[in-house]
Amino acid sequence: MSTSHSHNKPSKNVLFAQAGGPTAVINASAAGVIEKCHAHPETFGTIYAAINGIKGVLEEQLVDVSQLSGDVMERIKNQPAAAFQACRFDLDPIEENPAQYQRVLEVFMAYDIGYFFYNGGNGSMVTAQKVADYCSEHGHPVVCIGVPKTIDNDLALSHCSPGFGSAAKYLATSLLEATLDLYSMHNTSTRFFAIEAMGRNAGWLAIAGGLIKKQIPDVPLIVLTAERPFKREQFLQKVRYFMETKGYCTCIVSEGLTDENGQYISIENVEHTHLKDYTQLGGVAHTIAKIVNKEFDCKTHSAVPDYLQRAASHLVSQTDWEMAYGAGQAAVQAALDGEHGVLPVVEAIGHNPLTWRYKNIDLFAVADLEYRVPDEFITEDGMDVTEAALDYLLPLIQGERAIQFKDGLPDIHPLKFDTVELRLPKYQAIK
Amino acid sequence: MSTSHSHNKPSKNVLFAQAGGPTAVINASAAGVIEKCHAHPETFGTIYAAINGIKGVLEEQLVDVSQLSGDVMERIKNQPAAAFQACRFDLDPIEENPAQYQRVLEVFMAYDIGYFFYNGGNGSMVTAQKVADYCSEHGHPVVCIGVPKTIDNDLALSHCSPGFGSAAKYLATSLLEATLDLYSMHNTSTRFFAIEAMGRNAGWLAIAGGLIKKQIPDVPLIVLTAERPFKREQFLQKVRYFMETKGYCTCIVSEGLTDENGQYISIENVEHTHLKDYTQLGGVAHTIAKIVNKEFDCKTHSAVPDYLQRAASHLVSQTDWEMAYGAGQAAVQAALDGEHGVLPVVEAIGHNPLTWRYKNIDLFAVADLEYRVPDEFITEDGMDVTEAALDYLLPLIQGERAIQFKDGLPDIHPLKFDTVELRLPKYQAIK
Repeated sequence: MSTSHSHNKPSKNVLFAQAGGPTAVINASAAGVIEKCHAHPETFGTIYAAINGIKGVLEEQLVDVSQLSGDVMERIKNQPAAAFQACRFDLDPIEENPAQYQRVLEVFMAYDIGYFFYNGGNGSMVTAQKVADYCSEHGHPVVCIGVPKTIDNDLALSHCSPGFGSAAKYLATSLLEATLDLYSMHNTSTRFFAIEAMGRNAGWLAIAGGLIKKQIPDVPLIVLTAERPFKREQFLQKVRYFMETKGYCTCIVSEGLTDENGQYISIENVEHTHLKDYTQLGGVAHTIAKIVNKEFDCKTHSAVPDYLQRAASHLVSQTDWEMAYGAGQAAVQAALDGEHGVLPVVEAIGHNPLTWRYKNIDLFAVADLEYRVPDEFITEDGMDVTEAALDYLLPLIQGERAIQFKDGLPDIHPLKFDTVELRLPKYQAIK
Repeated sequence: MSTSHSHNKPSKNVLFAQAGGPTAVINASAAGVIEKCHAHPETFGTIYAAINGIKGVLEEQLVDVSQLSGDVMERIKNQPAAAFQACRFDLDPIEENPAQYQRVLEVFMAYDIGYFFYNGGNGSMVTAQKVADYCSEHGHPVVCIGVPKTIDNDLALSHCSPGFGSAAKYLATSLLEATLDLYSMHNTSTRFFAIEAMGRNAGWLAIAGGLIKKQIPDVPLIVLTAERPFKREQFLQKVRYFMETKGYCTCIVSEGLTDENGQYISIENVEHTHLKDYTQLGGVAHTIAKIVNKEFDCKTHSAVPDYLQRAASHLVSQTDWEMAYGAGQAAVQAALDGEHGVLPVVEAIGHNPLTWRYKNIDLFAVADLEYRVPDEFITEDGMDVTEAALDYLLPLIQGERAIQFKDGLPDIHPLKFDTVELRLPKYQAIK
């Protein structure tokens, strides 16, 4: 087996893990890491993937992905949601729970892990770096490289985030189709439609709705982002204008839309006790539609795609897919180049068509930053996108992928992997 | 122009109109009507389409579709939402408003309409028949043929309804993708997800979610239909079983789900004054998710695709498309065969693969019937679909269509048509 093979070489083994909310192309990054490591056996030994991110490391739930069949690799490349299961789970602060870090070190030593690739959001990057530091300080140096991903596009210092382009393409397509429906019925039925986009603090997915202006230049569209407070009167005034001039109005709204006091327009699951720091949002599209319904006494509709927007592998942006695959490869390349503690982010080098390269930045550099929609992408009234925004967005949604269907549905299902035989005592969470 | 051409022939002109909520393939039926009429110039003269259904007839908003370019016909075939705009508007009872019928007759006479093809739901069929009867009684016989459509699949006496297969394919695909997301995160995050399917009294679109069992045979899925009252304790018991055995639970629920007293679980826009007879539903998926959230103190999510499910032209079932196109052709064939006052419905003649023909039934025959999900399609516990249901559903979602993209989005936009020059005084609605 490949495990013994690593013992006879100066190469070190690899651990890959996925963390945080998935994207439609998150597994392209996994494939990028795996295939690039494969191509360099002189450096990389056995490649392991942890099930459920860092939680799987603690619990020694590891999969040897060195020998995956071509068929499985193809599936991984084309299916949504973390193929190796991800986690919303971070390690405790080291001073509070050093045993946790000690356990990670023990697992890394037991599997001779020399490279740790962590595919996640900002928080995951900090976790990865802290793990790497701990290992190095305890005599087992581990090269730690991040792999970026998020549909929210709020990763700082990067032109964009792998995962965003596909969610943007999905939302714009959905809004476009629903707007045709609205248009076709507005004379005798629904006159206002709102779709809700994910994005707690960043309105990137909401402005993606602006892309429908490329197909319908004069579309009566309102874009409400997390970056601009909701001003009820101005909003209703704009709706009225569209009702009077076009007969209908279509809308995309960030789930994180707030009022002028910074309060979320819609807060759900506030009684959600054990997730104290995480307020689940949702329902703002409905609230907005209700406001219009009451003001104009007209029929309104709203849609909340929720997970559909981050799982829509049937409508992936090929550009985004390539960016995600490339990010995985770039992470491995960074390791080959002797880097450590870095995250390869996207640097645009050409805009039409978009060309890019990956630039390694410090893992900690992005931790406390949040890339929000800049002022020049939102019109002065705060309810539309600018040409500059469309210029930015358009290249990210270009291209489609061929989808494998089986029995009329995408040929996807949760992949089940055999985990390796345990080498350590069962993990006992202590704190 | 083509108008004069009809005066020199024994042929009569044609009026086509669309009514009720659109489907992703409603325009395939329009194309079927137009192309079939074109092929029979000995019978059919100028082909007109009314804008906004019967409302456009009253207002003389007619488009000469005899001369549409090939490019426009291609667009019509592939875009969602009524290309000629539909209406939620029926004529008044004739005894209350005979002037309305008189106006329709005047328009029909002014345009020498001898054939009226009405593409709509049950209510529209009755309207069409009443119009035809009135015209005949007043010396201007009009052949009236219905064209079936509805995503809800509640059309009686038909194997299924054109429009249903595509909505089913969209919903099953969306639930499948979201379920992979749920699976990938359930160990540390969301453990329950619900998607809401349209369907006021009929749970056809909810049972379509059962199709994901073809890709994930052991999926922990709950299907809540409009046909079975929601039993909270039994539901929570099943969720608990899935939580304990699989760690998560995914769910699809009819918007028209009721409690054991027949009350809708979720009612929206009840203050919607001018639409007295029409209670707008929506939000039940959220309510269900909330119930699970409270019971299990776990993170839950819900999605409401709303119009997305009936407008998703990017994910049409080719089988459904062919059925919709064929329904348009069958309506014209019925006229050629000397039929009048009929609706061609779908009769299955082979099941694997599905083959079908159209059977003409009386327009009034379906008016007061509603085709609900039969008992043999729902398991005894009322929360899952049977193999028989899957056998029925599967053929309806087979096949995909090539999508034209432009700038990364489907190449669709509302089609604008020039209406004909008015021949009659402006319509004054009187009652």
